[in-house]
Amino acid sequence: MAMLNRFFLLVACFAVIEIIMAGDPDILTDFIVPSNVTSVNSSLFTFTGFRALLGGESPPAFKVLKASMAEFPALNGQSVSYAALQFPAGATNPPHTHPRASELLFVVDGTLEVGLIDTSNKLYTQTLQTGDLFVFPKGLVHFQFNADAKKSALAISAFGSSSAGTVSIPSTVFATGIDDNILALSFKTDVATIQKIKAGLVPKP
Amino acid sequence: MAMLNRFFLLVACFAVIEIIMAGDPDILTDFIVPSNVTSVNSSLFTFTGFRALLGGESPPAFKVLKASMAEFPALNGQSVSYAALQFPAGATNPPHTHPRASELLFVVDGTLEVGLIDTSNKLYTQTLQTGDLFVFPKGLVHFQFNADAKKSALAISAFGSSSAGTVSIPSTVFATGIDDNILALSFKTDVATIQKIKAGLVPKP
Amino acid sequence: MAMLNRFFLLVACFAVIEIIMAGDPDILTDFIVPSNVTSVNSSLFTFTGFRALLGGESPPAFKVLKASMAEFPALNGQSVSYAALQFPAGATNPPHTHPRASELLFVVDGTLEVGLIDTSNKLYTQTLQTGDLFVFPKGLVHFQFNADAKKSALAISAFGSSSAGTVSIPSTVFATGIDDNILALSFKTDVATIQKIKAGLVPKP
Amino acid sequence: MAMLNRFFLLVACFAVIEIIMAGDPDILTDFIVPSNVTSVNSSLFTFTGFRALLGGESPPAFKVLKASMAEFPALNGQSVSYAALQFPAGATNPPHTHPRASELLFVVDGTLEVGLIDTSNKLYTQTLQTGDLFVFPKGLVHFQFNADAKKSALAISAFGSSSAGTVSIPSTVFATGIDDNILALSFKTDVATIQKIKAGLVPKP
Amino acid sequence: MAMLNRFFLLVACFAVIEIIMAGDPDILTDFIVPSNVTSVNSSLFTFTGFRALLGGESPPAFKVLKASMAEFPALNGQSVSYAALQFPAGATNPPHTHPRASELLFVVDGTLEVGLIDTSNKLYTQTLQTGDLFVFPKGLVHFQFNADAKKSALAISAFGSSSAGTVSIPSTVFATGIDDNILALSFKTDVATIQKIKAGLVPKP
Amino acid sequence: MAMLNRFFLLVACFAVIEIIMAGDPDILTDFIVPSNVTSVNSSLFTFTGFRALLGGESPPAFKVLKASMAEFPALNGQSVSYAALQFPAGATNPPHTHPRASELLFVVDGTLEVGLIDTSNKLYTQTLQTGDLFVFPKGLVHFQFNADAKKSALAISAFGSSSAGTVSIPSTVFATGIDDNILALSFKTDVATIQKIKAGLVPKP
Repeated sequence: MAMLNRFFLLVACFAVIEIIMAGDPDILTDFIVPSNVTSVNSSLFTFTGFRALLGGESPPAFKVLKASMAEFPALNGQSVSYAALQFPAGATNPPHTHPRASELLFVVDGTLEVGLIDTSNKLYTQTLQTGDLFVFPKGLVHFQFNADAKKSALAISAFGSSSAGTVSIPSTVFATGIDDNILALSFKTDVATIQKIKAGLVPKP
Repeated sequence: MAMLNRFFLLVACFAVIEIIMAGDPDILTDFIVPSNVTSVNSSLFTFTGFRALLGGESPPAFKVLKASMAEFPALNGQSVSYAALQFPAGATNPPHTHPRASELLFVVDGTLEVGLIDTSNKLYTQTLQTGDLFVFPKGLVHFQFNADAKKSALAISAFGSSSAGTVSIPSTVFATGIDDNILALSFKTDVATIQKIKAGLVPKP
Repeated sequence: MAMLNRFFLLVACFAVIEIIMAGDPDILTDFIVPSNVTSVNSSLFTFTGFRALLGGESPPAFKVLKASMAEFPALNGQSVSYAALQFPAGATNPPHTHPRASELLFVVDGTLEVGLIDTSNKLYTQTLQTGDLFVFPKGLVHFQFNADAKKSALAISAFGSSSAGTVSIPSTVFATGIDDNILALSFKTDVATIQKIKAGLVPKP
Repeated sequence: MAMLNRFFLLVACFAVIEIIMAGDPDILTDFIVPSNVTSVNSSLFTFTGFRALLGGESPPAFKVLKASMAEFPALNGQSVSYAALQFPAGATNPPHTHPRASELLFVVDGTLEVGLIDTSNKLYTQTLQTGDLFVFPKGLVHFQFNADAKKSALAISAFGSSSAGTVSIPSTVFATGIDDNILALSFKTDVATIQKIKAGLVPKP
Repeated sequence: MAMLNRFFLLVACFAVIEIIMAGDPDILTDFIVPSNVTSVNSSLFTFTGFRALLGGESPPAFKVLKASMAEFPALNGQSVSYAALQFPAGATNPPHTHPRASELLFVVDGTLEVGLIDTSNKLYTQTLQTGDLFVFPKGLVHFQFNADAKKSALAISAFGSSSAGTVSIPSTVFATGIDDNILALSFKTDVATIQKIKAGLVPKP
Repeated sequence: MAMLNRFFLLVACFAVIEIIMAGDPDILTDFIVPSNVTSVNSSLFTFTGFRALLGGESPPAFKVLKASMAEFPALNGQSVSYAALQFPAGATNPPHTHPRASELLFVVDGTLEVGLIDTSNKLYTQTLQTGDLFVFPKGLVHFQFNADAKKSALAISAFGSSSAGTVSIPSTVFATGIDDNILALSFKTDVATIQKIKAGLVPKP
């Protein structure tokens, strides 16, 4: 009976859209042992790189700490990873995309303004309180901003891939050497404006 | 012969890179709008059910708070979800599996003893400090225990599916009405012992 | 608004068809040649390990014979495998899960009692006659029992993966060294009962 | 230690080819209930259409009995299905492909000549004894022939999809009305020969 | 008609659950560098093998030029490839299947007769003008024919896999050495007819 | 260089396990019939919307013509689609990403400058001649530019999804109403510069 109710509920919830997705492909073993690991024990499944995060000081600028396949090799084949986002007061995580996963952000401390733009160019913004979650679908441009002038903020983000990847729009577009003329045409502005933006984004030596 | 040559060619071409698996299938739209949603705005992507978690009191017994597709419909098709695990002092999350996703656990507060058994029946145990991560691969039996006699613990777990599912071993095996004789044979014990365990797991009226 | 229109359009276009999902990912070659195979011929695709099964004597206890990727390497990438389940009179295959595939059981000889528990803790039992099929969905706990006091039974099970894996509940939970106290808490019983079950399941030296 | 050994064995086996792949995507529920099912019980998971197969008489011509999603709706989303192949003495299952799954054939009774052609046009043939298995990779042309002049044969085939599909070469190419001239050009023969083959394959009224 | 009935049946069976499909799995890196590539630059992503196609002379017989993973290694993991099909006047591309991808054909020059047979043995034919597209679903038999007696035709086909594979029916069935008797039984004709067709398809020395 | 280092690191980490990826999931039917189609015939598989493309006049500005699931519903479930890109002399296709597929571009007429930036912020540029192909991996930022001052260019792009989606960077970031201050912080410039770029990208009334 409970079973049936559950299904009727599902039907009630999704009767119109009738999509549904997906799922995450399996590997053919329980887990994948990295080649440089000679003895498999519980430390393989453990990651301590986030200890500094809790109770530590806030960094001077926006900072990302990752626990993806690169930092935590046991995630290979498990289709999940984390990033910790640290925002000093007034800091922003610039517009970016993750080519290989959706992001499920959880505000652990402070508040955040977040924004998401879908492929029909509609902007969705939200003010998140401590404890709130927000989902950024795979491949869509999004950003976060700590509007509080005094208090830092901390968020934990989960990704449905062990290697989500990040494409940062400012640095990808304006700090990789794309021709000024092509950018001016693309952004319907003049070369001087492009060069001004590029100057601000060049890494300091 | 040609066949073999073709394979050796493949070997020659890809011998170094040796990738990498898996990945998470896409949906064919940016996101999926539930049928009962008539106006798509940023509240679709927002979940506030975890606000009570931070700063609230610890529950009297082990408790799970979920943010999966059932509670947060926008996760449909995004291959990611969360669960918040609240452990009073001395509480345990009994052995269980998630049939549809790996779990990446993050100890937000307190400490946890965790255990994982792979399909070759090897047990991996670990003591996690605040800030530590541990990954439980898809479909494998695992458990957590707050060994601290005084302090509660809180963990956040991310899943690489919007609907990971949970199979709790004690209630699945001993509280669903499986025949006593079959269980006694399976666990190589007597019917009286099976009935004793069943009695403890029956939901109180 | 445009967003909504787009979704309603999708609904209009696909409202009737309502398919179905799933599917099995391809490999990028016809098949995969194991590295120790130097000449590809038809023996690569042939497995003779089941010959003893038909017409042979029944084993003294429940016994599984597998034809998965480990025993039959040509199955790599083909998403299918077999297991043959031999039940002497009164024998049981204890509660277990397969983390990487559903199981489609076919009773070739004799009769079987089978059981399946879903993630809402509902038990489904069935008495299967010779020739009957029963499907155990991926990752769910299930068992089989030959209730016949005199006649043995034989079943063939197909899996939708070349490496389905098996998690046996009795041996995973009670024969891998999990702490008695954690198990007692988990099964809401006393340590003595846990130790009694453990004693029965310890492999004889 | 056993764990490590298992991995080193895998490495030993697949060190050169280094492919691997695959896995079978999940659905987001334990199973999918067909819309015409109003009460979910164990009959949903049971299929009795193969009872006639065992102990029954051999059919007069080659005959296939299927247990796929069409006949057994609970297979939807479980990525597995069966077909039973009945061969009278001297009967053949003509060259065909399965577009959506590999086939793992198990000779339950009698003997079979089987053949498989890969995409490099290499033919693999094998004589299978009772109890033997043979795998036909997804999408490749294959056939079976009972060369025994007196004894019938029976095989069970498992597929890694609930809906494998079948493309029979003779009827697809010569009994669907493809233009004679195009076929003559394709098979580098004359129109008369094409028409002769077509005549033999036309369904009798 | 049978086709339609089949679909209405599916609709009847699954009208409530209404799932949908598909999507293309990711790799876990931006792209995969072949092992023989020591410096990654833009030439990795560039393929010049089709230059000869445009403006060149028509070949004397039907000819396929491919840009798949074998010819263009950067396609590995990108799930897309091309083939260019060149048809002199009156030439045909014989019935064939692609086991690993659907084909989306685009007539760049001239006209083409195309045909497709689904798994219910229904033939779909179409006359394509310059600029037309036609989709051949994965694994189904199809063919193309340039019916124009004087003008050549050129088509570009896209595939949703980097390694679609091709099974040519005439050469697979009649030029790989399958036993004459099995083929005669399969095509319901005599051995002489089989041998006549085989003779025409044998590669000239 | 950084790119190469990253890959060698991957090689170092995963040198033994050597997995590989990918493939394109199947649907469970030959094709999917849209709900508004009452008679399935060959027109379902045919798309004529590209006829105007060949031999027609060049548009006054950069223009994209699509043949994806939205315009050509039979592509649903087939994991492939096309776009035709028309470039007048000097026109550019601004930086953008496709969240759901890689793009394989084929220059049919004229020449094109193309650029691609990977997630390590390395820019790859190339000058493509008529007949050249270039692959843009899924989710990465890329652009095309017709540097010829007099001659138009035409490219056909194939995608390994029926619904690749497009995120145009200029319009997504600067024409959807993102707060000026957040953008100024993100691009490390002043609000006036942000407002200037926004003004140029606002759609003319």
